[in-house]
Amino acid sequence: MARARRPRSAEDQLIARYFHPLATHPGAFGLVDDAAALAPRQGAEVVLTVDAIVGGVHFFTDDPPGAIAQKALRVNLSDLAAKGATPAGFLLTLALPETIREPWLKAFARALGKDARDYACPLLGGDTVRTPGPVTISIAAFGTVPRGKMIRRSSARAGDRIVVTGTIGDAALGLALRQDADAAARWKLSARERSFLADRYLVPRPRNALAQALLKHASAAMDVSDGLAGDLGKLCAASGVGAKVEVGRVPLSAAARKAIAADPALIETALTGGDDYEIVATVPARKLTALQAAAEAANVPSTEIGEVTRGGAAQFLDASGKPLLFKRLSFSHF
Amino acid sequence: MARARRPRSAEDQLIARYFHPLATHPGAFGLVDDAAALAPRQGAEVVLTVDAIVGGVHFFTDDPPGAIAQKALRVNLSDLAAKGATPAGFLLTLALPETIREPWLKAFARALGKDARDYACPLLGGDTVRTPGPVTISIAAFGTVPRGKMIRRSSARAGDRIVVTGTIGDAALGLALRQDADAAARWKLSARERSFLADRYLVPRPRNALAQALLKHASAAMDVSDGLAGDLGKLCAASGVGAKVEVGRVPLSAAARKAIAADPALIETALTGGDDYEIVATVPARKLTALQAAAEAANVPSTEIGEVTRGGAAQFLDASGKPLLFKRLSFSHF
Repeated sequence: MARARRPRSAEDQLIARYFHPLATHPGAFGLVDDAAALAPRQGAEVVLTVDAIVGGVHFFTDDPPGAIAQKALRVNLSDLAAKGATPAGFLLTLALPETIREPWLKAFARALGKDARDYACPLLGGDTVRTPGPVTISIAAFGTVPRGKMIRRSSARAGDRIVVTGTIGDAALGLALRQDADAAARWKLSARERSFLADRYLVPRPRNALAQALLKHASAAMDVSDGLAGDLGKLCAASGVGAKVEVGRVPLSAAARKAIAADPALIETALTGGDDYEIVATVPARKLTALQAAAEAANVPSTEIGEVTRGGAAQFLDASGKPLLFKRLSFSHF
Repeated sequence: MARARRPRSAEDQLIARYFHPLATHPGAFGLVDDAAALAPRQGAEVVLTVDAIVGGVHFFTDDPPGAIAQKALRVNLSDLAAKGATPAGFLLTLALPETIREPWLKAFARALGKDARDYACPLLGGDTVRTPGPVTISIAAFGTVPRGKMIRRSSARAGDRIVVTGTIGDAALGLALRQDADAAARWKLSARERSFLADRYLVPRPRNALAQALLKHASAAMDVSDGLAGDLGKLCAASGVGAKVEVGRVPLSAAARKAIAADPALIETALTGGDDYEIVATVPARKLTALQAAAEAANVPSTEIGEVTRGGAAQFLDASGKPLLFKRLSFSHF
């Protein structure tokens, strides 16, 4: 039983060495205080979100440490993006087993620092602890929105159009490739397509560039982290509405289309598989053009996939108009 | 490899059942959104802190779940108290192994909810994940202070008086009792003294009642979580000052005094052992009386133990004025 809220000695020094440079925000006080301070400008409020990833559950423990760092921060940046929030900073909890060595930590911190700069989301503080379990990273991320303007899940209205960014299902297929060595051959994927899908699983690309456009035009939004079908279902439930999505309009990458052509059942993997870190938003019909123009200006692909209905669940309709029946809405081993 | 950012099914429902009642803050949106919103009132800024506790490291895995919940939240409340911040809410990351069952979760959530109410620090959001490791809890807690007024570690000045709340060393002795079945007899402790010390280890009593007095009078402060000697040393290092503490003035409980009388070497355990969750503050000499009066009014015992010096380290002087030499400043198994 160790009394060890903060690792000391050699490891403590390593952490100071590698994480101190990430604490560029004046309110981080160079990581030498017990707490950080964040003063949103007048008329703004703070949006708060937290997501944790666990080795062997949300990432492979032999993933590159830089990719693990990127995933840990970006899953949170994705939530901020969907809420229309501008990133302001984050708190890092890092639980490390004894097997973690300096090169791992160095690569982890370097990638985290690059993302913190690229997304203007500096490290505000953290806690590093020892664990007998796997590497576990929890990040609490903060952003700002004009007061009362955080985009909610619960404000979609019947008649709104449904828009999704990027392409759906790549990460789920990328994970399937890692779990099944023969899948790439069965799906007739080129090396390039394989690595595209694998990378989509490994490193999310959150859509923070879209936040301002969402603030201006979206009626509701959330990030797609647990599968489009399940997540849109949650948005509908929170809003007390239903949805009709045309499966044929759901944007798929060339690699995903090829895999699904080889094995049509994979459409379910794509729609329910999670880790997309795209955004699904609803938008009043009259604002659809403006939202899509703003998305294009922000270099974010967006596709209209269906509409919000008065009632019922979120339905995914095939070419003949019949709803697909999924074995599960969100992929999970629980 | 599970894609399981959020547990589903039975466990998901349990969590919704037990944690939803804790989300009393309107900005928590009933835990059904991706993020929470916090709008500090004008002229205020947000103080942010995060601390994690890991089963088998910071608590015994067979500790009562309610005590684990209290420790997880209170170690953070203690940081807010030391910074002069009024609690505003928290985000919870809960990593659970498969062995955790409903009664554990129910007791955990109930105690967490009671503390959230008692300390006016509601649950704003969270993430629950599966782990192959031990129960791991990370809490990011938020408070507010008038803008620019967060009490720092780095602002102690030579000549300031050093004040500590409560009694020091009880938790470290309580932990030693749990690790050494014969200690209680050797230290000649009554059953009541034993259980007093054990409880001081099990459940912190953060000094949030002192926050306003600290804001008004303290020049610097931090919570004593890793041992008074080491923590005061950190405060001095951050402030670029030294300190002289008279060991004879460090407040000890009757149980701690008895143990130390039986084994004088335990004074080192008391001063370096951690988990006190008291506050060490520095205060300009002219404000000492006012701070101590405010502490008394807030029902928080406070004791002057020494003074801030121009240079040198934090020294703990024995009755003859000689500095104690500790084997280590902060207890840790790292």
